[in-house]
Amino acid sequence: MMEKVDHIGIAVRNLEERITYYTETLGLTLLKVEEVASQQVRVAFIDAGNVKLELLEAMSEQSTIHSFIEKRGEGVHHIAFGVTGIRERMAELREKGIQLLSEEPKLGAGGAEVAFMHPKSSYGVLYELCDKSGKGDKY
Amino acid sequence: MMEKVDHIGIAVRNLEERITYYTETLGLTLLKVEEVASQQVRVAFIDAGNVKLELLEAMSEQSTIHSFIEKRGEGVHHIAFGVTGIRERMAELREKGIQLLSEEPKLGAGGAEVAFMHPKSSYGVLYELCDKSGKGDKY
Repeated sequence: MMEKVDHIGIAVRNLEERITYYTETLGLTLLKVEEVASQQVRVAFIDAGNVKLELLEAMSEQSTIHSFIEKRGEGVHHIAFGVTGIRERMAELREKGIQLLSEEPKLGAGGAEVAFMHPKSSYGVLYELCDKSGKGDKY
Repeated sequence: MMEKVDHIGIAVRNLEERITYYTETLGLTLLKVEEVASQQVRVAFIDAGNVKLELLEAMSEQSTIHSFIEKRGEGVHHIAFGVTGIRERMAELREKGIQLLSEEPKLGAGGAEVAFMHPKSSYGVLYELCDKSGKGDKY
């Protein structure tokens, strides 16, 4: 059902400073920077070889990244599984008793369709389903 | 410097129950279960395609996983980068001002040599360096 880990989402206070940390200190490569206005976040994708790190900076206090950082500080926000057929995957999870945070997939970074599982259903981890089989680009 | 993400460490209260969740609900494959007595943890490696999930259960109150869960609940504990030449990588990071949690690598799961970066150095994320080029097995 879950094919692979597409990316690890990391909440950050300052996108430019954290990009410098990941590229200059850790030696990783910046793939792209993008605004996702619907989620009120600016995101930077960092290539970590087999998986991407998605740095997430809040664009406003309405962003869930803003409230996450207020409550817990910077750090790992979510883990995204790559899937195909996101609506079928969501239906399968619901049948297994998993609570999802939305009825329908939403538009995420890179044009992917995304949906989140309630962290109470997955024991404290916020898992995202991320489907790029439609109009999503390669990041 | 960091070649890839080797695994994502997830703190859990009950290893057997969480293995059931990851295998039966999410459809992933259990690779192995192992005790790491030096860290006072029992670990289960789950195959998530391109990366492993390392479920970590405390064996005693002396385990850092016990105090992590007491403070923050279950959830993502660390992200491990696969490296070769861990001592050289540690020296490079120290030169760049990164604080490490130990002077020397320690023995981790699967016989790997591991070291942790202080989460204050990496903005709230606990990163591990994980070197299996020596005696570590494939997990």
